[in-house]
Amino acid sequence: MIIAVDGMGGDHAPKEIIDGVIESLHAFEDIHIHIYGDESQMAPYIKHHDRLKVIHCSEMIEPDDEPVRAIRRKKDASMVRMAQAVKDGEAAACVSAGNTGALMAAGLFVVGRIEGIERPALAPTLPTIDGSGFVMLDLGANADAKPSHLSQYAVMGSIYAEKVRGIEQPRVGLLNIGTEEGKGNELTKAAFQLLTDAPINFIGNVESRDLLNGIADVVITDGFTGNMVLKTIEGTASAFFVMLKEVFNASLKSKVSAGLVKNDLKGLKSKMDYTEYGGAGLFGLNSPVIKAHGSSNANAILNAIRQARTMVEFDVCGTIREVVGKAETK
Amino acid sequence: MIIAVDGMGGDHAPKEIIDGVIESLHAFEDIHIHIYGDESQMAPYIKHHDRLKVIHCSEMIEPDDEPVRAIRRKKDASMVRMAQAVKDGEAAACVSAGNTGALMAAGLFVVGRIEGIERPALAPTLPTIDGSGFVMLDLGANADAKPSHLSQYAVMGSIYAEKVRGIEQPRVGLLNIGTEEGKGNELTKAAFQLLTDAPINFIGNVESRDLLNGIADVVITDGFTGNMVLKTIEGTASAFFVMLKEVFNASLKSKVSAGLVKNDLKGLKSKMDYTEYGGAGLFGLNSPVIKAHGSSNANAILNAIRQARTMVEFDVCGTIREVVGKAETK
Repeated sequence: MIIAVDGMGGDHAPKEIIDGVIESLHAFEDIHIHIYGDESQMAPYIKHHDRLKVIHCSEMIEPDDEPVRAIRRKKDASMVRMAQAVKDGEAAACVSAGNTGALMAAGLFVVGRIEGIERPALAPTLPTIDGSGFVMLDLGANADAKPSHLSQYAVMGSIYAEKVRGIEQPRVGLLNIGTEEGKGNELTKAAFQLLTDAPINFIGNVESRDLLNGIADVVITDGFTGNMVLKTIEGTASAFFVMLKEVFNASLKSKVSAGLVKNDLKGLKSKMDYTEYGGAGLFGLNSPVIKAHGSSNANAILNAIRQARTMVEFDVCGTIREVVGKAETK
Repeated sequence: MIIAVDGMGGDHAPKEIIDGVIESLHAFEDIHIHIYGDESQMAPYIKHHDRLKVIHCSEMIEPDDEPVRAIRRKKDASMVRMAQAVKDGEAAACVSAGNTGALMAAGLFVVGRIEGIERPALAPTLPTIDGSGFVMLDLGANADAKPSHLSQYAVMGSIYAEKVRGIEQPRVGLLNIGTEEGKGNELTKAAFQLLTDAPINFIGNVESRDLLNGIADVVITDGFTGNMVLKTIEGTASAFFVMLKEVFNASLKSKVSAGLVKNDLKGLKSKMDYTEYGGAGLFGLNSPVIKAHGSSNANAILNAIRQARTMVEFDVCGTIREVVGKAETK
């Protein structure tokens, strides 16, 4: 299986991307990797490997490029070439830590949508206290969603959780502002009924305050709300660490205290680090497209490549195509 | 000034409510309090006070009552009687720690909306790292909002921040999933333009990850998103304390560490406790209606009464009426 990787995307490209690629080749003997990017910039970090191929690209997508325009104009950008390789059947999946919007545009316009899927969705795996994590979608591929979109997100998320995360009958919850049926805004009220009828294990409404307790394996929401909740979790976690640091720096006594739990606190921080769970899948496309976090280090890239590999191995896209196709012909 | 208080609402009623009322009477010499509730249940905690009047009510709103029906049928409920006293001009403002939905219904149907205000909004003050706090609305009075509602929320929030919180030219931000103009869903895109034209100090879009850093004095959002964000902050903070507890209980060494910072950690917890900032105002009604947190203790009730008093003193409702009236006749 060939996985295409964007060598130029992310804050620590190309070094950490290449290091992650090399680690992946050692970890998974059944994969080949084609890495796309500027040869001269990548050369210092590239190590020869039988299953690694470097493909030179003269352009790259910048973090602040306007997504759709960049994808259309920069035909020789590493991200576009990587997506084109998937489209052409040269690679089975692709991974990039670059501009999220541009990757979504490349997914939509280059790799292409599965017939019957109305909107693709961005689906990271987020941390829970017990370390098991949950899949949440959409996290921002589409700000405005219709009830039917949420229903398709639910089917895609459920298939992913079952195939890739190995959860039987994954519990699918609808993110809402109350647990009772009939709660919420117009969108969630209408989606509730569709989710009840969908071929999933729908457990009803779930509230955002219970997310980190692992209230569901798959959490469904529109892209605006999902992105808002993700950034709220990030902001609250980061504020908490700032305040904790203040507490520990307040006095000599507290500094001693900090020294005693330093390593455990680091563990807590990495528990909340969702790059550990791989990248965010872009669901609803013809082939797996994985968005690794912008700040990805080699380990995060390894996890994202593992995820791409598993999605190919268990034919997640094919299963989505099949289930959505069945729903269409009903 | 007479403030009406619901003696039967909240997890710790009537004891903590009454204790808070007594403390308020000592703290503010210019207020009289009329407390509504079951006389026999309240009697053990009531202390005689010249400025306290107890009004017996034979019914009460339960936490799981269907709000609108409860308000319409239970005419002798403490919450309804309290709201009626405001409506009749017997009291200048009211405070309840009871069923949020029922209080919103009592506000809307008994106290009444300011002419020109399309939707009332629930507006608590939330904590920031530096302790200054910010006002956020709507936190759930209306799940679905139109752009014009957000614009009115902004005007009301700005007036409140200026009059009650004493902030000159309060910075008003629109909660969104990106800071640039043009980001967001249909609602926030349309609201952006209206907020630009509103008589407020509009600072543009703000992201939820920056809320606890005090990015704005007033944060504007629809009730669904606001409620979602509030519950996400609560859930994330509570997950952190759970994990922190685990860290501190992990070994003898960490237990020693915990002992050294125990008091400072309590300080951190109370910093994140938004009951310290008073209750949530229900803005857009003819008189101040304050929703104290369901878990309110005496101190939280004192803060909520202080808030009601300040809203009356600075005529927040009158100012809203005036500004909205001006906008209407433009």
